[in-house]
Amino acid sequence: MDDQKKMIALLERRGVRVEQIADIVFRLQYPYHPQLTLQDCVESVKAVLTKRDVQYAIYTGVALDELAEQKLLPEPLQSIMEKDESLYGVDEVMALGITHAYGMIGLTSFGYLDKKKIGIIRSLNDETARIHVFLDDLVAGVAAAASARIAHRQQG
Amino acid sequence: MDDQKKMIALLERRGVRVEQIADIVFRLQYPYHPQLTLQDCVESVKAVLTKRDVQYAIYTGVALDELAEQKLLPEPLQSIMEKDESLYGVDEVMALGITHAYGMIGLTSFGYLDKKKIGIIRSLNDETARIHVFLDDLVAGVAAAASARIAHRQQG
Amino acid sequence: MDDQKKMIALLERRGVRVEQIADIVFRLQYPYHPQLTLQDCVESVKAVLTKRDVQYAIYTGVALDELAEQKLLPEPLQSIMEKDESLYGVDEVMALGITHAYGMIGLTSFGYLDKKKIGIIRSLNDETARIHVFLDDLVAGVAAAASARIAHRQQG
Amino acid sequence: MDDQKKMIALLERRGVRVEQIADIVFRLQYPYHPQLTLQDCVESVKAVLTKRDVQYAIYTGVALDELAEQKLLPEPLQSIMEKDESLYGVDEVMALGITHAYGMIGLTSFGYLDKKKIGIIRSLNDETARIHVFLDDLVAGVAAAASARIAHRQQG
Ligand SMILES: [Ca+2]
Ligand SMILES: [Ca+2]
Ligand SMILES: [Ca+2]
Ligand SMILES: [Ca+2]
Repeated sequence: MDDQKKMIALLERRGVRVEQIADIVFRLQYPYHPQLTLQDCVESVKAVLTKRDVQYAIYTGVALDELAEQKLLPEPLQSIMEKDESLYGVDEVMALGITHAYGMIGLTSFGYLDKKKIGIIRSLNDETARIHVFLDDLVAGVAAAASARIAHRQQG
Repeated sequence: MDDQKKMIALLERRGVRVEQIADIVFRLQYPYHPQLTLQDCVESVKAVLTKRDVQYAIYTGVALDELAEQKLLPEPLQSIMEKDESLYGVDEVMALGITHAYGMIGLTSFGYLDKKKIGIIRSLNDETARIHVFLDDLVAGVAAAASARIAHRQQG
Repeated sequence: MDDQKKMIALLERRGVRVEQIADIVFRLQYPYHPQLTLQDCVESVKAVLTKRDVQYAIYTGVALDELAEQKLLPEPLQSIMEKDESLYGVDEVMALGITHAYGMIGLTSFGYLDKKKIGIIRSLNDETARIHVFLDDLVAGVAAAASARIAHRQQG
Repeated sequence: MDDQKKMIALLERRGVRVEQIADIVFRLQYPYHPQLTLQDCVESVKAVLTKRDVQYAIYTGVALDELAEQKLLPEPLQSIMEKDESLYGVDEVMALGITHAYGMIGLTSFGYLDKKKIGIIRSLNDETARIHVFLDDLVAGVAAAASARIAHRQQG
């Protein structure tokens, strides 16, 4: 199984399908590119998931989420993760690492998604049975990156 | 006239009042802090305007806007500024310099404002008689910073 | 024990004393401020360690280092951490989160320390008995922040 | 004349040759890649100069340097630029915009160059007859980006 497939499998294990990320990308970019299809967005998300920086961020963030679910983190980190403490910003810092490579458009899209919590980001944020402190931001980071990728391609 | 007053005068010359920036801050923060008053937001904007980094960014961005209005910039920069070329991102990079000091909350609020263009940011963006390539982003940067400042204070 | 003392104890458990971080700060800032004492640098490091963002980053990074030592991380993250894989950049992204609040000076000092690996940063990087994938960058981040803090104070 | 050639001509007008930037890249990357040639570095610098974000940053920064030489900037910006005021950080913020697209390696190399001022960066910084407030940082940004580009290619 190649790295991209491993990523997709990992995200599915955590309850996120590529199409759900693509759906966010579509909602961000459709107003600017009326010919855009959902399939274009799926491809852009998959392209982002081939990047090593993105894979490393997802491996690390998901590991922290899963270790918190298994109550394996040292205190006070375990409690911070269980409460999804609003001042904890390591999740956002890590996710922003994903969008950096896509310039300012990626950065501002991430900021927008972080606030609006569209689609699967909202679902992850609201789910209480599992811990998704990092995953919601990582998904926003991937969506912002895939969205910036489309913006750059269409314009250039 | 002290530096903060000079800033306020400069912004007014370009068509932006402190209250209009404070209004954006209020709309960003009111949902989280129901006791917040517009006066609190005015004070937070004024505090941000005392920061040297913020002043330097505003002096530089407004100078570029005004030099473009006077057609004093070398080509191709003059044409880029007149068209408010959408791929030109120096304005956003410069404005983000303002919010960096206020952590991730500042960064994500800037991204949100950059997309939603609330209040005076929208007016600056739509005005055609003058050139505001930098000013709309600088105002978003100041509003995001003032908003993050309130978020940090209320929580800490 | 207050938060700052907990931080100092945590760093000591991982082999880093505040004075060793202060020593890096001194070497960065002494050329510009001949009156600077090592005690000034100790105080600046301690002030940085009171910041919540800094504490959260250190808790998270040290937890990952310790979980890797205990072989509790999922693959491929466990192997990446054991090899201190040079393309893994999550440690640097997380550490940069610390210096953001101290403006551009913090950012460029971090870049310098990341390359030169002065003092305790070098020792952490070279130690093979324990895993310090995150800690070397976190120490660089704290030193860069404490250094920027001195630069801003002396000038303003 | 295409955009890349225009960039090269613009830099030469300001006293910077591509080979001088490539020389910095070589000194940064040679320790890690002994097969690296100066010609590889020239090509990497040229590739960076084809990026629109990079071109926009250079057009803007050089315009500000030249307008300052012509004493066309409004006060207090004119005086700040003439003194190369050390707290003015807009030049570094703008230059960092160049390296963002090349990930953390670009960012930390920029920090290193900003501090060490190798080769032509030092010459620009020391020249007193002309104003290079922005150009020294832009050159550091391009060198850091070209350096990160080589690091990514060699490793991946
Ligand atoms: Ca989160
Ligand atoms: Ca703008
Ligand atoms: Ca490391
Ligand atoms: Ca400079």
